[in-house]
Amino acid sequence: MNSSTLPTIKFLQQPTSAAWVEQALANLDIILLDHSHCERKAAGVALNLMFRYPSNAKLVRTLTAIAQEELQHFEQVNQILERRNIPLAPLAAPPYGAGLAKQIRRDEPDRLLDALLVSGLIEARSHERLGLLGAHCPEPDLARFYRSLMVSEARHYGAYWTLADAYFERSALTQRLEELAQVESDLLATLHPQPRIHS
Amino acid sequence: MNSSTLPTIKFLQQPTSAAWVEQALANLDIILLDHSHCERKAAGVALNLMFRYPSNAKLVRTLTAIAQEELQHFEQVNQILERRNIPLAPLAAPPYGAGLAKQIRRDEPDRLLDALLVSGLIEARSHERLGLLGAHCPEPDLARFYRSLMVSEARHYGAYWTLADAYFERSALTQRLEELAQVESDLLATLHPQPRIHS
Ligand SMILES: [Fe+2]
Ligand SMILES: [Fe+2]
Ligand SMILES: [Fe+2]
Ligand SMILES: [Fe+2]
Repeated sequence: MNSSTLPTIKFLQQPTSAAWVEQALANLDIILLDHSHCERKAAGVALNLMFRYPSNAKLVRTLTAIAQEELQHFEQVNQILERRNIPLAPLAAPPYGAGLAKQIRRDEPDRLLDALLVSGLIEARSHERLGLLGAHCPEPDLARFYRSLMVSEARHYGAYWTLADAYFERSALTQRLEELAQVESDLLATLHPQPRIHS
Repeated sequence: MNSSTLPTIKFLQQPTSAAWVEQALANLDIILLDHSHCERKAAGVALNLMFRYPSNAKLVRTLTAIAQEELQHFEQVNQILERRNIPLAPLAAPPYGAGLAKQIRRDEPDRLLDALLVSGLIEARSHERLGLLGAHCPEPDLARFYRSLMVSEARHYGAYWTLADAYFERSALTQRLEELAQVESDLLATLHPQPRIHS
């Protein structure tokens, strides 16, 4: 299955609310800072998976490319932060990432399946939300930047899906994806009070 | 201090022995596989430091570039492995990395100083050894590859040194570097029986 035939629409159970878009647009600077952390974390997740499955050539090849792109995004977001005089600073993470990480079962091969699907879901949500920022952000440069990243994040969720599809039975895959996608949407059902990419 | 005035020769206390070169040239395939692991680990170390000091703009900028280059090297080595039909596989690590990691003191700011100097020393040693492989490897393509990486690793140890120099007093820096460089050379004084980049 190549990424053009991905079940794009079904990947996320619930679309992002208008309330999130409003919250994000009213807090573009914080969203940018949080976005920087997200890109670094995305690179970290890809690298960690490579460390856990170092002999798996297909996985290593795919995740090397993803890690490189996430570091490039990280660099790009940091350049924007610098231009806007926003200093790099820690930000409390919303419950989203930890809530999803908790879903990853501990024993193999479930652990690999869940890790790939959870990463795919996060990428799919990032794709959706960067797309929303690309469509609604009132600053043209920033909107253009979001649209350019949106395309990569779509490729990333396709890549995670394709990896899962290479190693697991399609039926086990789609069933587990549905469960995890439900958790993912539930985690975003109530808007987190602090503006975040995944609030 | 820019990298052109680095104390290059003094960075390493002892040069690599002829015995290592001989061992490496007699085991090029294992050295390539170990090299792949080294590049992935180098990317991991840079990324981990970025996670530990996320607010430090200069460090983050420098290490983002290093992590990107290490991932590129990792990809290049893996392509060579693939062409030679050497499957990715785990390899027992030599005592070198763990022996150096043990030297990193636990409390800040010592921890940062030691981490930067240890990384700088590992890069300096990689630079030296890839240079030796570049000079002595009988396969011209592979020798050229080693020479190309050698240049990056020199830049990397310069970058780690420059970061340490930006955050710490020169005298504390040079004194600690001397201690760590002594440990680094001691760790390589007896040739490890298994051929490794840092055996
Ligand atoms: Fe990204
Ligand atoms: Fe991504
Ligand atoms: Fe490297
Ligand atoms: Fe390096």
